[in-house]
Amino acid sequence: MDSTQAVTFDDVEQAAIRIAPYAHRTPVLTCHTIDDLVGANVFFKCENLQKSGAFKFRGAINALSQLSPDELKRGVVTHSSGNHAGALASAAKLFGTNAFIVMPSNSSEIKKAAVNSYGGQITECDPTLAARLEVASSVQKETGAIMIPPFDHPHIIAGQGTAAMELIQQVPQLDAIIAPIGGGGLMSGTCLAARALKPKMIIWGGEPAGADDAFRSKQAGEMIPQLAPNTISDGLRTSLGEWTWPFVRDQVDEIITVNDDETIAAMRLFWERAKLIIEPSSAVPLACILKKFASQTAPLNQPPNHIGVILSGGNVDLLNLPWQRN
Amino acid sequence: MDSTQAVTFDDVEQAAIRIAPYAHRTPVLTCHTIDDLVGANVFFKCENLQKSGAFKFRGAINALSQLSPDELKRGVVTHSSGNHAGALASAAKLFGTNAFIVMPSNSSEIKKAAVNSYGGQITECDPTLAARLEVASSVQKETGAIMIPPFDHPHIIAGQGTAAMELIQQVPQLDAIIAPIGGGGLMSGTCLAARALKPKMIIWGGEPAGADDAFRSKQAGEMIPQLAPNTISDGLRTSLGEWTWPFVRDQVDEIITVNDDETIAAMRLFWERAKLIIEPSSAVPLACILKKFASQTAPLNQPPNHIGVILSGGNVDLLNLPWQRN
Repeated sequence: MDSTQAVTFDDVEQAAIRIAPYAHRTPVLTCHTIDDLVGANVFFKCENLQKSGAFKFRGAINALSQLSPDELKRGVVTHSSGNHAGALASAAKLFGTNAFIVMPSNSSEIKKAAVNSYGGQITECDPTLAARLEVASSVQKETGAIMIPPFDHPHIIAGQGTAAMELIQQVPQLDAIIAPIGGGGLMSGTCLAARALKPKMIIWGGEPAGADDAFRSKQAGEMIPQLAPNTISDGLRTSLGEWTWPFVRDQVDEIITVNDDETIAAMRLFWERAKLIIEPSSAVPLACILKKFASQTAPLNQPPNHIGVILSGGNVDLLNLPWQRN
Repeated sequence: MDSTQAVTFDDVEQAAIRIAPYAHRTPVLTCHTIDDLVGANVFFKCENLQKSGAFKFRGAINALSQLSPDELKRGVVTHSSGNHAGALASAAKLFGTNAFIVMPSNSSEIKKAAVNSYGGQITECDPTLAARLEVASSVQKETGAIMIPPFDHPHIIAGQGTAAMELIQQVPQLDAIIAPIGGGGLMSGTCLAARALKPKMIIWGGEPAGADDAFRSKQAGEMIPQLAPNTISDGLRTSLGEWTWPFVRDQVDEIITVNDDETIAAMRLFWERAKLIIEPSSAVPLACILKKFASQTAPLNQPPNHIGVILSGGNVDLLNLPWQRN
């Protein structure tokens, strides 16, 4: 039995009940300009408007809800450079427990500030996966805190699946859905919800070309780790894990990749026309469907009529926007 | 009989029926961070998500809907440096007619681009009110087009009133409402809706200190034009008009003014925490309630429990953000 059997849609439904008192049922918004460009009705699930500014809050709450009172007393620990850090700190505050967050020293100031604002306790480490694991392990030993991993855990996957579940409830006519792929937690949860609620729905994953381990793994038929990611989409630099790879392998219909210029153009288009703040990782799926269906150069593909896009988050450093760096 | 009798809530209800096929019923969003700061439940009516990116679309559609087929053939003309220009061009396109837009030569490139994108025909003029009126008048004579003024007209006021009407329908428990004041079209329509639907509701107007003609006029009891506006809030630099002044004089309970630093701070807070793009003019009402209820230095006022804020628009030049200029 692999993970696609070990975690089920029932777990997503249970997660939805657990997170309901804490998480926003985020709105679904549309944008005519983008509909016209894509040639379809595109529905954006606004997890940038979720608590802590990202879908990560769903998984964090679902994981914390399943800890015993004794475990909660010990606190929780994770390593993350980004939105999982802020989400876990925010969730821990709601549960009255301590969050010990190991963050690489090159994490953005805005993401460190978010963790601090929720009362999370940051330990910095060198910006390598080895250092992150080592420091997290030593913090865990020191504090006795419970490890809450950023994506490769059934409670996290089930929690993230509630975003797609809500989107399909809000827009039952969806024919296709796309989520970004970093570690694959959101993508795996999206597969669980989509396959259960609309088995024939097309499922796409969006990935930056500079961190395309899911694309390459799917082509090779085996998990190939991401060694030297190079992309502006800081939430998508991680490799798939043992729990998430089988979903990508067996349930995602196609992985679309985009380069950073395409991501930045999509992000800017969305800010200008949809008036919503999304971070680069969130703009990747939009860039993917624009590339696939609205490209000026490629022969035009015929899009499905109703496409759902999960906007994963909106945590951006407003003093350092990508179109100003170019 | 002054304008507060000559245009009525019945006109707003009629406007709502006219604009329904064209305009968005924009969502109302909330933000816990802002609720905590203000000490009240604050409800944001998202006209930044309206067609053309601003509430101005409502008035433009309401005005165009009342033109005869013969009048529509002649096209429409206006002078505007900003959102009315884009809204009228966009509305004219929907009605299959020409929009002749007189814009001051110092209008922002982004607002000129918006007019162009809707097929509006721009005539540039010197950046003075006299030049605007003169050039608009000559364009009108040349083309025979119908003048659609930016705010001082009963059809415009009634159209803008639909935003507050919807907000009160969406959040019936509102105790207070605030809108920004430029020429006063949105403010007047807000008064019409609020006084009709909830007569005891507190009505505030928000104004930049550098264009505070409504504040000074209300104090003096007579209309004092804005001679040399100096504010980043480009939508609020205009003076009140004959139709809008009586609403401000008789129905607005209080006008709150903020300086540009307060506006920029509120705008940045909203981008960072609510993840929605609003322009400086839209941030003025938020800055006003933060100043009134969340100030660290002033003695704390007790806010009403439920405050409605009309976010007027989201048309911003992303290459020229105010916190980067400071």
